[in-house]
Parts: sequence; C-alpha cells; structure tokens
Amino acid sequence: MGSKKTIKKLKARLKKARAELTALRAASSGPAVSPLAPDSFPDLPVIGGVRFATAAAGVRYAGRTDVMLANLAPGTTIAGTFTRSATRAAPVLDCEVKLGGDPAPGAAILVNSGNANAFTGDNGRASVAALCADVAGLLGIPAERVFTSSTGVIGEVLPHDRITAKLADLKAALSAGGIAAAADAIRTTDTYAKGAAAEVEIGGQTVRIAGIAKGSGMIAPDMATMLVYIFTDARVAQEDLQNALGDLTERTFNCITVDSDTSTSDTLLLAATGASGVEIGHGDTASGKAFRAALHGVMLDLAQQVVRDGEGATKFVEVAVIGAASTADARRAALAIANSPLVKTAVAGEDPNWGRVVMAVGKSGAQADRDAISIRFGDILVAEKGWVADSYRDEDGAAYMKADELRIEVGLGIGDAEATVWTCDLTHRYIEINADYRS
Amino acid sequence: MGSKKTIKKLKARLKKARAELTALRAASSGPAVSPLAPDSFPDLPVIGGVRFATAAAGVRYAGRTDVMLANLAPGTTIAGTFTRSATRAAPVLDCEVKLGGDPAPGAAILVNSGNANAFTGDNGRASVAALCADVAGLLGIPAERVFTSSTGVIGEVLPHDRITAKLADLKAALSAGGIAAAADAIRTTDTYAKGAAAEVEIGGQTVRIAGIAKGSGMIAPDMATMLVYIFTDARVAQEDLQNALGDLTERTFNCITVDSDTSTSDTLLLAATGASGVEIGHGDTASGKAFRAALHGVMLDLAQQVVRDGEGATKFVEVAVIGAASTADARRAALAIANSPLVKTAVAGEDPNWGRVVMAVGKSGAQADRDAISIRFGDILVAEKGWVADSYRDEDGAAYMKADELRIEVGLGIGDAEATVWTCDLTHRYIEINADYRS
Repeated sequence: MGSKKTIKKLKARLKKARAELTALRAASSGPAVSPLAPDSFPDLPVIGGVRFATAAAGVRYAGRTDVMLANLAPGTTIAGTFTRSATRAAPVLDCEVKLGGDPAPGAAILVNSGNANAFTGDNGRASVAALCADVAGLLGIPAERVFTSSTGVIGEVLPHDRITAKLADLKAALSAGGIAAAADAIRTTDTYAKGAAAEVEIGGQTVRIAGIAKGSGMIAPDMATMLVYIFTDARVAQEDLQNALGDLTERTFNCITVDSDTSTSDTLLLAATGASGVEIGHGDTASGKAFRAALHGVMLDLAQQVVRDGEGATKFVEVAVIGAASTADARRAALAIANSPLVKTAVAGEDPNWGRVVMAVGKSGAQADRDAISIRFGDILVAEKGWVADSYRDEDGAAYMKADELRIEVGLGIGDAEATVWTCDLTHRYIEINADYRS
Repeated sequence: MGSKKTIKKLKARLKKARAELTALRAASSGPAVSPLAPDSFPDLPVIGGVRFATAAAGVRYAGRTDVMLANLAPGTTIAGTFTRSATRAAPVLDCEVKLGGDPAPGAAILVNSGNANAFTGDNGRASVAALCADVAGLLGIPAERVFTSSTGVIGEVLPHDRITAKLADLKAALSAGGIAAAADAIRTTDTYAKGAAAEVEIGGQTVRIAGIAKGSGMIAPDMATMLVYIFTDARVAQEDLQNALGDLTERTFNCITVDSDTSTSDTLLLAATGASGVEIGHGDTASGKAFRAALHGVMLDLAQQVVRDGEGATKFVEVAVIGAASTADARRAALAIANSPLVKTAVAGEDPNWGRVVMAVGKSGAQADRDAISIRFGDILVAEKGWVADSYRDEDGAAYMKADELRIEVGLGIGDAEATVWTCDLTHRYIEINADYRS
C-alpha cells in the first residue's frame, strides 16, 4: 500500500535525522562534570578549631547554597595570597590588610558565590564593612578578624542584606564536619566541588590539613575566580605561615593556567588553629619542612583540580621546561606553551604538533637557541638539534596524544634552570576549525 | 484515516527535526568567507618596476597556485620587518641580513605557501640557499638580492625542487598586472585574498603604492603567519624606507592581535622601485610626510584585513586606551583587553560585559587606579569612578554590541598617553559555554 510505504520511508528518514541530531547535540553540549574530575570528593578530616556552616541566601542563584561561614578558634593565625590585579575587588583589599592582626580572639571567613562585589564603587567597601561588622557581632570577635570573599558576576552591587539575614542560621548550623558542604557552596561554574587533605606525623603527633577550592578555569563567566581555603590544626606563627604559603603558591597555584586571564577576586587563605598542639617552626626546621611538604601536597592537588575543571577540558597537561638560563626564563617559556591557543588546540585534537611548541618558546621572550631545543612528549623524544629527532615516528606521537594526561617537556639546552606548570586543552568548535589541519 | 494521520504526524516531526538539523549544521560549520571581509578584492594600480608571476608547484596543496615571484627593477630599495620570535624560520633569517644590499642590480621576492620551512634544521638554510641561487641565475641578479618567504606547515623539509622546477615558467609569466594573482597564491587558511593601495600627489607627480597580505589570525593551523609585500614606484633611500616602515609598523601591524600567538615566519617587505621618478625625502620633509601618510593608509588597511579574517571572527573590535601614564602602559592595557579570551567571548556573545574590560586592565600590569577608570562602548559611557555610570542603561550597551564593528575605549585617568589596537571576537562553542552567563 502507498501509505504504508510512505510511512516506512518517513520513519526511516526521521530515524536518520534523529540519529544525526543526537550526534550533533552530543557534540554541542558539554558533559555535566569534567571528564578529568576525580572520582569523588575526598573524605576530608575534621580540623580541630574550625567549624563550618552553609546557607542558601539567594544572592543570585536559586535552589542551592551560596554562602559559607567558617568560624576559627581563638589563637588561629591566618596567611593569605591574593590576585595581583590592579583592579582588585573590595573583599580582597579588605583581607590584605587584616592578615597580620592579633589571633587571640579567633576569626571568621565568610564567602558568597553569585556576586563578586567587584567594581562596585563605594558600595563595595560598604558591603564588606557591613558583613564584617555583622559577623563580628554574631561571633563576638573584632571585625578586623573577619575575612570575606565574593565570587560571581561583577559590577553589580552585592545584596549583602540577603547574607546578613542568614547569619543567625549560619551560626546555629556551625559544625566541625561541614567542610564538604562549604566546598559546594562556594562553586560558581565549577562542575565539581574540590577538596584535598593531608596528615603528617610531627614529633610523634598528627597534624591535619584540609582544603577546599573553587575555580573552573577556562573563560569562566565570573572570570574564573579562584578561591581557596586551607585549614590546619598545626600551631604556626603568622609570619612562618605566610612565608610557607608564599613559597608554595609559587610552585602550585602560580603554576597553573587555563586561559591566561586573571580574576579581580582570587584569594587563598590558610588558617592554622593550633588545636593539635603541635608547634611548627620556620621553613628550615624539621617540623617546618614536614609541614611544608604536606601543605605542598594539598595545594598542588587543589591547584591541579582547578585545571582539571577547565571549561571544556578533555586533557590535563603538564608542561616542563628544563635547561633554561634562569628559573624566570623556564617559567616564561613554560607559561607561553601552556597559554598558547595553538598548542592547546593541538592537544585537544590529539595532534603531536611539536612545531607549535617551538613557536611558543620562540615568542616567550625566554633565551633560546633554535638549534639547541629538544622536545619530548612523555618519554618520546620528538625533536632535537633544530629538527625532528631521527628516532621519532609520528605514529608514536599521535598514539601518545590520545591519553587524558600528557606531559610536554622542552629542553632549552642553555643552562640548568627549570619550571613546571599545568594546563588543559582548548576544545570543540575552536578545534573544528583548527585541529584537523595537519591530518 | 489512521495512516493519513500517522503520515501527517511523521511529516511534522521530520520537518521539526530537519529545521533543528539545519540550525545545528549552520552553527557547526564556518562560513566560506569571513563575514567581516571587504566586498571584493580592490583594483590595485600597476606599480612601475615590478612584475609578478604565480605557479602551482604542488608544494603541499593541489589544484591551486602556491608560489609567487616578484621581479623588481634595478635600483629598487627594500626595507623589511620580521617576527621577533627566537625561533625564526630560515627564510626570515636570510632576509634579515639582505636588506641593506646594493639596489643597483634589481631584486626578486619568491614566496611559497603550504610549507613554512621552519624548524627544519640545516635543511632550512639549504633550501633557502638553493632557491636564492636558482632565482638569481634565472633573473641575472645576485643571490643577495633574492628574498624568500615560506608559509604553511612547519617542521617538514621544504620540497624546494618542486618550486625550482617551476622557475622557468614563472619567469616567462612575469607581468605588471599579476599582483592580484600573487595575493591569491600566498594564502593558506585565509578566507579571502588581501590587497590595498594608495595614490598620492607629490611635487605634482603621482606616487603609487600597492600591497598584498596573507594571515587569517585566530589559531591558524600554520601559526597565523602574516606575510605582507608592499610595492611603490617612489624613489626612497633604503635607510629612509626602513625608518618609515619601522615607524608605521608600530602603529599598524604591531597593533593587531587575534590570538596572541606569534609566528616563526612573519615577514613584511616594502620595495621602492623608483619608477615614478619621484624622490622621497626623510620623514621630516614634505615628500617624506606625504609618502608616509599614504603608506600608513595601505599598511593599516592590510593589517585590519588580517584581523577581519580571524578564524571564526564575527566582530571587528577597535580597542583604545587613553589617559595612560605612558604609551607603553596604554599599549599594554589595550593589548591585554584585545587578547583577553574573556573579553573576546563577551564580544562574540554581544554581551556588554564591561567588568571583563576592568579585569583585563587590572591584569595588564599597566598603572591603573580602579576608581579612576572610565569605559565607553562606542559613544556610550558605561562605567566611571569605579562603578557603572549613572547614565548607563544595559539595554543601550546590549544594542550597541549587536554591531559588526565595535569600539571599546578605556580612560585610565592618570596621564595623557594613548594607544589603539584592533582585534576580533572569539566565537562559537567557546561561546556556547560562556557568553550566556549574564543573560
């Protein structure tokens, strides 16, 4: 029958069209959670001297928590590092001047997501002052010991009344076990909550460190603001804590890059409650070294988790530069490679395009001699002496690039300084245009 | 009837599926020619003393021309500027040392597309030497007066025999009118050939300038190499020509950015044949000023055409920074804005997200006072005194952003130095993730 035939034909066409639709839809919508995410949020230890609470204040988002409060015991020292932006947000400017304050009365950290309170003129300062005063009153501590962060849209006045309206609830909800919920509340475009922890034996006693972070890298609409809060029950003098944080930031959070943009709000706070009773010396002491090693692990883990949440990322890339004339040069070359859209699209396209690595080294400003450069993808020697290596086969490079986690090593052959940074790939439509060129 | 109803239903479903398919297909494939391209290739004047020829040598591409030869009359002076990359390609290194040579015997420029002859070890130098020797023999000029450029894939040895095999044909085909074909032959991923011209009366006589360029910006697979060749019938001493080119490059080609990556092969050659008989003085003379003004127009036109061919570009953006403490600061801030993926995705999404402009200024390293910054989108005052302007309405900003050509002006409010640069937006999937956030 004619109509049966027509129905059959139409059904076949519809099936075909729908199959293509499914494929195109899949290609044009990102995964809910980054494919590079850890399997699950880690089991973070309770840190004596810290209690957490979260609330849904509706600052911007509906149906989720968006405020976290951490209450820190008397005696807690606090260190911090912040964005170097010349247009730092009001909460950052406020935190910077408070770090060295008297730890005796205790402290608090209040963070909201949804609104960055950045570039809001005098309103910015006013909101921070209001929040600090209210938290201080609530917890019976000086306003100088209240640290705030805000992340989200910028240029809009923070509706801080919505947060202060929740402060009593927050105080009532404070609990030692609330750190995972806190990690959730500070997310903006993050596809997963980020946490990391370490325990270290110092003088026969256990010191615990637990940290949370937010930041999803690549072109996050809220400017990829990175917020990091790390808590330890060690007892550390503020100056030693600040030195440890500064040194380790250079090797962790300052070694990651997703899109080269810098937020007006980036904040890293490290709070040492002393609840373990374990005294940590300065960086040259045994206790200082052990503490720093453990802290380094937590910071590197969190930093790499931020890269792993780079929007659209499908590859995690370690870039190491060795044989440089200076550490600054090594770092400059490594960051030029890690920030190069050309390198990042090649990685996304699984294209062992070492020529783009050469280009990035060339433009970096680092001292380089074209004919002394060597390049390795993982263990594979790809190029040396100004050209492709004799032993290199493009199939090997192509096979290596299929992995989720990659290492690009560049030897400059000039000195013995080195640097390592971490980044992710640049994917999708960007790639439709570019990645298939060398095929 | 049941089957009629079924057919109707299926047809409706098929129609709907196909409409979505059409939309998705359109969204996932770029236009053949950039929407920002000029309407057509301009009518370039014949420049006395220059003849052009092109050939299909099959260096890499099939079915198209990929070599251009320009033969320059005796007495032609040549100026040049080149990539500052530390890993410059062999042809660049060769050109650099030849600029000041004796113009008496004439000169030649040979350019191939498809292979950049970059990072090819000793082979690079050998290919350049072979090509220069063969062109010199063919045209009866010294090898020191043969300038070559190569653009395309890097790290692969240039099959220069394929080019030398075509040299006799090229010589036979040399013609004064061949410049448009030359513009075509040097294209790689360019979506259109680029040309610009000017005529200027100097001392009652006409001086002509005509130039061609290639370079398609954003993540061009061949590294967005920019090649530019400009010809004039003016008579200009090499030193004056070089000074004019250097000064004007700072205000044109060094003020455009698409993806911040720098090619190993960027080359700009300017040849003055003297065929008009019009002598041009140095930059302070009347003739020097008139000549520079005309040359500036040609260079700016070509530079902006390169930006307009940025891959995936849908918006052409002028970024001006005024009120800076120094020109270097103004330039630094302008380039930070123009290179910011966050700013560029906002532009693509037609989002008047001035907060991202603030962010870019903040990270640029330029001296800035958050509360002194003002921002204009076109004529619209968007922000001032550290916050959104009283008069600003977001609808106005949103309406402005719908234009194809945009101007972002930032006042730093510190000094009186300024700089202007040009860029394009960052589109598509990049945007699917990011541009809708503030909606």
